Amino acid sequence: MEIPIRVVQIADDIKAMRIRGAGKIARAAAEALKIAAIEYRGPLDESSFKKYMAYVANLITSTRPTAVSLHNAVLYIMSKVRAVSGGVDDMRNAAINAADKLIQESIEAISRISEFGAKRIKNGAVVLTHCHSTAAVSTIINANRMGKIVKVYSTETRPFFQGRITARQLLESSVPVIQIPDSAVRYVMNEVDHVVVGADTVTSNGAVINKIGTSQVALAAHEARVRVFVTAETYKFSPMTAIGELVPIEMRGAEEVVPLDWIKSHPGLEILNPSFDVTPPEYIDAIVTEIGVIPPQAAINVLVERLGWALEEFLQSEHRPVFGEV
Amino acid sequence: MEIPIRVVQIADDIKAMRIRGAGKIARAAAEALKIAAIEYRGPLDESSFKKYMAYVANLITSTRPTAVSLHNAVLYIMSKVRAVSGGVDDMRNAAINAADKLIQESIEAISRISEFGAKRIKNGAVVLTHCHSTAAVSTIINANRMGKIVKVYSTETRPFFQGRITARQLLESSVPVIQIPDSAVRYVMNEVDHVVVGADTVTSNGAVINKIGTSQVALAAHEARVRVFVTAETYKFSPMTAIGELVPIEMRGAEEVVPLDWIKSHPGLEILNPSFDVTPPEYIDAIVTEIGVIPPQAAINVLVERLGWALEEFLQSEHRPVFGEV
Amino acid sequence: MEIPIRVVQIADDIKAMRIRGAGKIARAAAEALKIAAIEYRGPLDESSFKKYMAYVANLITSTRPTAVSLHNAVLYIMSKVRAVSGGVDDMRNAAINAADKLIQESIEAISRISEFGAKRIKNGAVVLTHCHSTAAVSTIINANRMGKIVKVYSTETRPFFQGRITARQLLESSVPVIQIPDSAVRYVMNEVDHVVVGADTVTSNGAVINKIGTSQVALAAHEARVRVFVTAETYKFSPMTAIGELVPIEMRGAEEVVPLDWIKSHPGLEILNPSFDVTPPEYIDAIVTEIGVIPPQAAINVLVERLGWALEEFLQSEHRPVFGEV
Amino acid sequence: MEIPIRVVQIADDIKAMRIRGAGKIARAAAEALKIAAIEYRGPLDESSFKKYMAYVANLITSTRPTAVSLHNAVLYIMSKVRAVSGGVDDMRNAAINAADKLIQESIEAISRISEFGAKRIKNGAVVLTHCHSTAAVSTIINANRMGKIVKVYSTETRPFFQGRITARQLLESSVPVIQIPDSAVRYVMNEVDHVVVGADTVTSNGAVINKIGTSQVALAAHEARVRVFVTAETYKFSPMTAIGELVPIEMRGAEEVVPLDWIKSHPGLEILNPSFDVTPPEYIDAIVTEIGVIPPQAAINVLVERLGWALEEFLQSEHRPVFGEV
Amino acid sequence: MEIPIRVVQIADDIKAMRIRGAGKIARAAAEALKIAAIEYRGPLDESSFKKYMAYVANLITSTRPTAVSLHNAVLYIMSKVRAVSGGVDDMRNAAINAADKLIQESIEAISRISEFGAKRIKNGAVVLTHCHSTAAVSTIINANRMGKIVKVYSTETRPFFQGRITARQLLESSVPVIQIPDSAVRYVMNEVDHVVVGADTVTSNGAVINKIGTSQVALAAHEARVRVFVTAETYKFSPMTAIGELVPIEMRGAEEVVPLDWIKSHPGLEILNPSFDVTPPEYIDAIVTEIGVIPPQAAINVLVERLGWALEEFLQSEHRPVFGEV
Amino acid sequence: MEIPIRVVQIADDIKAMRIRGAGKIARAAAEALKIAAIEYRGPLDESSFKKYMAYVANLITSTRPTAVSLHNAVLYIMSKVRAVSGGVDDMRNAAINAADKLIQESIEAISRISEFGAKRIKNGAVVLTHCHSTAAVSTIINANRMGKIVKVYSTETRPFFQGRITARQLLESSVPVIQIPDSAVRYVMNEVDHVVVGADTVTSNGAVINKIGTSQVALAAHEARVRVFVTAETYKFSPMTAIGELVPIEMRGAEEVVPLDWIKSHPGLEILNPSFDVTPPEYIDAIVTEIGVIPPQAAINVLVERLGWALEEFLQSEHRPVFGEV
Repeated sequence: MEIPIRVVQIADDIKAMRIRGAGKIARAAAEALKIAAIEYRGPLDESSFKKYMAYVANLITSTRPTAVSLHNAVLYIMSKVRAVSGGVDDMRNAAINAADKLIQESIEAISRISEFGAKRIKNGAVVLTHCHSTAAVSTIINANRMGKIVKVYSTETRPFFQGRITARQLLESSVPVIQIPDSAVRYVMNEVDHVVVGADTVTSNGAVINKIGTSQVALAAHEARVRVFVTAETYKFSPMTAIGELVPIEMRGAEEVVPLDWIKSHPGLEILNPSFDVTPPEYIDAIVTEIGVIPPQAAINVLVERLGWALEEFLQSEHRPVFGEV
Repeated sequence: MEIPIRVVQIADDIKAMRIRGAGKIARAAAEALKIAAIEYRGPLDESSFKKYMAYVANLITSTRPTAVSLHNAVLYIMSKVRAVSGGVDDMRNAAINAADKLIQESIEAISRISEFGAKRIKNGAVVLTHCHSTAAVSTIINANRMGKIVKVYSTETRPFFQGRITARQLLESSVPVIQIPDSAVRYVMNEVDHVVVGADTVTSNGAVINKIGTSQVALAAHEARVRVFVTAETYKFSPMTAIGELVPIEMRGAEEVVPLDWIKSHPGLEILNPSFDVTPPEYIDAIVTEIGVIPPQAAINVLVERLGWALEEFLQSEHRPVFGEV
Repeated sequence: MEIPIRVVQIADDIKAMRIRGAGKIARAAAEALKIAAIEYRGPLDESSFKKYMAYVANLITSTRPTAVSLHNAVLYIMSKVRAVSGGVDDMRNAAINAADKLIQESIEAISRISEFGAKRIKNGAVVLTHCHSTAAVSTIINANRMGKIVKVYSTETRPFFQGRITARQLLESSVPVIQIPDSAVRYVMNEVDHVVVGADTVTSNGAVINKIGTSQVALAAHEARVRVFVTAETYKFSPMTAIGELVPIEMRGAEEVVPLDWIKSHPGLEILNPSFDVTPPEYIDAIVTEIGVIPPQAAINVLVERLGWALEEFLQSEHRPVFGEV
Repeated sequence: MEIPIRVVQIADDIKAMRIRGAGKIARAAAEALKIAAIEYRGPLDESSFKKYMAYVANLITSTRPTAVSLHNAVLYIMSKVRAVSGGVDDMRNAAINAADKLIQESIEAISRISEFGAKRIKNGAVVLTHCHSTAAVSTIINANRMGKIVKVYSTETRPFFQGRITARQLLESSVPVIQIPDSAVRYVMNEVDHVVVGADTVTSNGAVINKIGTSQVALAAHEARVRVFVTAETYKFSPMTAIGELVPIEMRGAEEVVPLDWIKSHPGLEILNPSFDVTPPEYIDAIVTEIGVIPPQAAINVLVERLGWALEEFLQSEHRPVFGEV
Repeated sequence: MEIPIRVVQIADDIKAMRIRGAGKIARAAAEALKIAAIEYRGPLDESSFKKYMAYVANLITSTRPTAVSLHNAVLYIMSKVRAVSGGVDDMRNAAINAADKLIQESIEAISRISEFGAKRIKNGAVVLTHCHSTAAVSTIINANRMGKIVKVYSTETRPFFQGRITARQLLESSVPVIQIPDSAVRYVMNEVDHVVVGADTVTSNGAVINKIGTSQVALAAHEARVRVFVTAETYKFSPMTAIGELVPIEMRGAEEVVPLDWIKSHPGLEILNPSFDVTPPEYIDAIVTEIGVIPPQAAINVLVERLGWALEEFLQSEHRPVFGEV
Repeated sequence: MEIPIRVVQIADDIKAMRIRGAGKIARAAAEALKIAAIEYRGPLDESSFKKYMAYVANLITSTRPTAVSLHNAVLYIMSKVRAVSGGVDDMRNAAINAADKLIQESIEAISRISEFGAKRIKNGAVVLTHCHSTAAVSTIINANRMGKIVKVYSTETRPFFQGRITARQLLESSVPVIQIPDSAVRYVMNEVDHVVVGADTVTSNGAVINKIGTSQVALAAHEARVRVFVTAETYKFSPMTAIGELVPIEMRGAEEVVPLDWIKSHPGLEILNPSFDVTPPEYIDAIVTEIGVIPPQAAINVLVERLGWALEEFLQSEHRPVFGEV
């Protein structure tokens, strides 16, 4: 089976993390499937085309098996391809149209989210954010342009200090920022009106997986009757979780937490450095997506809207390779 | 009025923070009052002696007006002096005896606390501690000697990384330690059996002021039905709070949170770096003191036991100088 | 563009609040759009008809820009008109049919809600209601006819005493009523089995905006494990909130709270008199609508069912005038 | 009207509880309707067929008026029949296909649920279960095969000791089981990672009716931040509750709770022996169904997916007999 | 037995409510007992004097059997009398001294409470108060003098509008006041830093009985992590509750809630108009008394400090008349 | 050293559990020490008497090392003996008087508790009790005599069914009783006004150790705003816990939970049968003791009142034998 070289390159770039970020990955995957559809040179029967596309789909998803936006993009396009039953040309067009639509929506997603989210910020608001999220930062900047923001508490977000990126971007847009250590969240919480954070993954029952510490920010907000908004593109909603898959939590290196020489000079010391934690839906007021502001419990609606009840695509393809054998 | 030179030196050492740590300060203050009493060379009437002692008391407490153990030591000894009404010799002896008793008890305090506290740890326990507290570390080491500890989560405690001191001390006593970023507390909490922390100050209504982040550790523990033990010597109980004084929260420098050049290159960036936060009594299972294990709401009992209801000493002396004019 | 005189009159009546009440407004708007469609005398191309209808739609919605049922009625009918692509006659019929359907359902809504809601009341129930809501009162009267009601606590609902209307209507239907001051809600709550209230607006994430005080009634119910039912016609579900709009809370006059002469004789006194507050979804057991009993988090389902995901109509028309330019 | 003898037999078997268990009842009802459709010998007009099928539907549902799976099966098939408008043959086929689909899905349901549920169990898990549920037991056994289970606490489940069946089945599959009295649930809860239970009925707002005691297990889990999974086939979701019906709680005999002679020798003693209680959605992390893992608040989605908004079938047929008069 | 005429007059004035307010009643009772002791003209044996004093004590307390400050004053003085065993003169002096001390402390109580309480208010505070309490108002005015108050929300406090008195007094001291309906408490709570209220009675386990509505204010504060301070003189602590007595809640007239003609024109309407409700200790951060700031759970300490463990006086005298028979 | 034979017999009876029940054990221990003091025939110096009494004390406490009332009785009497410094006769008398007082108070304790507790029950109350406690049953019977009780829910209390004893005793006193399985507690809780239970041990920080299941009863009560009263004689307050001792939880036999043959036929089945669980103070409204109604957090006050701060007796005697070496 002949695979266009650009498709292989894209797959490679995703694998090597030259392409990174949930949105960019999704769009690259869509692009790859579109190219594959356009450049298909095989036999003109449906079955051959499906096999080919499934092969490509497997190739792409295998590059980062746990990247939820990657799977979402591929699943969406493939479901449109499979829905067609009128010859290769129609299927090819289905793939191209689905890819274009997905790319377009993905590009507009942040803009829409930040528009919807900024409206939800009240006048004179004190906002707290954690880590760095483009959707969250854009929302805050938008609200600031509307004259609503008094100040923003931004956690430093150990161990990687992504909060400094957040602080810099907010400052560049003239948002007043106060940086705090992660441990000072509860200290300032009574003054806060809204917590606005991003998401890495949203599960089928409305839990949000995000940067380690998010769940204790949300807990402290809940304790003080401060509402928590999660800004999340819909391609972060994980269909896998609807069939029970747990979202794997990456454990990162000890040297991010303590200096290497300190580790060496303290034999026996262990370090636990999880990247993410899970915020339960009861601590989240609303998830702001590009298709609307929803309660976390409506995450399943988003998945069903996209992929259908029972997620048949998944259920049929659980036994890998995901998109059919070649 | 002639003040013994060693008394002045002690006062100076406390002020310059050459003497630091709640226990050491308390003992130094007691020592100073004892010396003052012994070396008193003034007229042999009660009134003169009282004035003299009050002068010394004011001198000492003024070195660190917010150090609760300093005030406690001075108040305790002065209340014993004032209770005497039988001439200078008796008053002198009262001062000496009170100082000796206080010093002795202070020395034994950590040992007793760690003994009481270790008993409260259950077999096979996973313990979490925050920042560095001698009382807490001693308690854990004691429990480990009794074979009860499976492992200890120790937060790094930004911005000063005092958690590394905790980790080192625990390792030196062969306690298995896992260091975590402050933001990973809730992530590990479901596995934890006991939270054991120290205290900077205990208020009359049972709130505990301790290193920033303690209150969100306690909140996360409360959420997961994990019991929180605070280890605190009784000289950390603040009588001032019984007459309404707020415990001042020290704000520390921005450079502890972000590198100096980063601050310079980001004009407009503010940093909030509070040293302490307040854990409300409802998140504390028990305070382990050297005179017993008590619920936080019994903090007032400790104050009354030491200084009497209505804290008359305080009420009479509110208009500074605290211990009478000279 | 010629607008039928009756359409203009209806718009005027809504504006002057001669037509009031969420249901009546919705039906009047539907009636107006139906008349407009019937009496259209313009060119027989689709585009002209659409422009004309959009003009009428804008005219009607501009009379009360924050009345959620008004917007819902217009949006619903316009979405049906736009869905048609077969000439003016088909579009006209679509408008007429949609208007008729909406009017019919609106009329039946209270009857269905009170039927569904009454079933949910248990035998021997003590019910508490706040303010005055036709849907809530009907539900209680229905349950009383079924012999289920022991007594009803009805708050007086300051400052306007709408609770007296509730009390009167319940008494007229032989429901045993006990009127209480708003501040006595928690006092009686342990005796209550169900709280039944109405709604002004339901948001996309399941929060309920209703008469000031509702949220503290719900909070007190939650504290005592008393379930809260909100009775709400689906035209009270706000699509605007799905794209982030905040529901404006009307502030009313000081003279409703204190007598005018008192205000005059107390210069400097301020009065805050908000009409509504927000009850979060976690304090609501179920929303009883005419299309079913749902959890508050399913409010988004109702919106999507009516207007489609992403609420395209809205998103396209956000830049006013809402329904296209003329 | 002639009813096939096998249909009558099935109805009889359900009534006499020779056919029992939610799944078996659903499949038997489907089988009966399928047979009725196949063996229909009446006039070949639509109206006659519909009357006949409605008669059979009423016959079957009247055997156990509160059995939710029975109603669900009949409603599902009848809604497919009614959706057809093309002659008796098409309607007959619709009935047959719907029955076959329902039977097939029902058979696969437990297998899918246990697969989805087992994935959600974390490695090294301590699980607690209450009463006996095939779906819950299968899920645990599946997770144990994946090497994830450390041990399972199984309540004895007074008064009927169904927990012993659970214990036996788990032991037969080599799952380590610890049986505890119902009153020891909170004692062990801090050690538990997941609660996994079954369901008798799921309501439209996400409450779960299950064996008495389930709600206090869930409460104790919630207190300790232990997540609760309910395993439930979708035919346990009650459409009746969407129109306000309360789920009746069966009261069972006193002799199950105290020995008969004890009752006799203690005149005046009353016994309350309810079979079920209601667990509110806020204590449930997720419901694992054969069509996906959902938050309890998405129960309404399942109902709507199956039967349509407003549950028209129900609303039209509320005045019994349910499926039209003959 | 001859009772001085002024003692009888005082008893009469208390009964007729010409003397009212907890503090004034307490001082009047002390005054009466002092006069009785001074003017005693009976036999000079201890037993006769005791009988006489007990008679007077019973006379006074019987005027308002549920007034806690009245009982407290009499009990305190009588316990001092009974503690003496050295002849009538000593007993007489004991009574006089105790009465003087009580009067003095009572006068100073508000001043001390407002001093302690004002210190607890943080800078830039938004305070909410309910009903009218001299101690609470004084505390707020004191804090305002210290420049700490931004604004005060004062509830109107239906049905008697005591909040207007609060508003007036605060305005007279230049405190910025915003009056709100009782139902708007939760609406403003997120903005509030401290709730400061008074107390009618404090029970032995730390519950506070205060004006109806206080408990829902405290509940709303607790929900939003807003700390609640109760200002209460120690003579409001009820010893009776330490031996199990419930504090009776006065029910007031219907005409305070609805106009009389409305009641007449609505036969069957019932009105419930309770004066007080009970705020549980878990919603109270601290009680500010004239002898110190304590957690509510230390109420029993105050009682024991005043009257001794087991409240022997009470226990011996439970069978009325309280202070011995004559 | 010669020990009176009756003392040895009492010790033996306690050990063999011929004397059982917290009150009886306490009185027997006091009786034994009294006899020992009376029958002392050793040298008439203080030191010899003390050694002798310490020997007896150790003898008695060693019979049931974990019985809190036993330790309390011995500690109380020994502390009175040690407080004397005036020869053997005085010490002997101190022992006799202390023993007599303790016996007298112990006898009256239940009567006082039930009197105090019954007052706290409101009119028309529905009460729930768990297991069997003489103090709780007496309280309920007392309240019933006062006409306050509507009905009492009594749990059966698996595995030993002590609830049947409760039911019988209540029935014998004409209290209307409804027996329920332990798992039905939450089902009935919304109807309950008060939970009244006994205690096995009260700890220094206010936790109550009582029959397994008590803590989940209290949790369910807390969830429904139902107040929980614990009835407990003061000799159930454990001084050991004030120095950190954990209260050991007895594990009982598997055969109490499942029939022996069942155990045999199910190899591998484990049974966990703990006798007690721990109810945290936040779920307890008040502890009703014979010396007053207190919040659980005042347990430490009771201990200090009895044995002094720092529990010196304990601290000196921690290294066994407890009461000095011989």
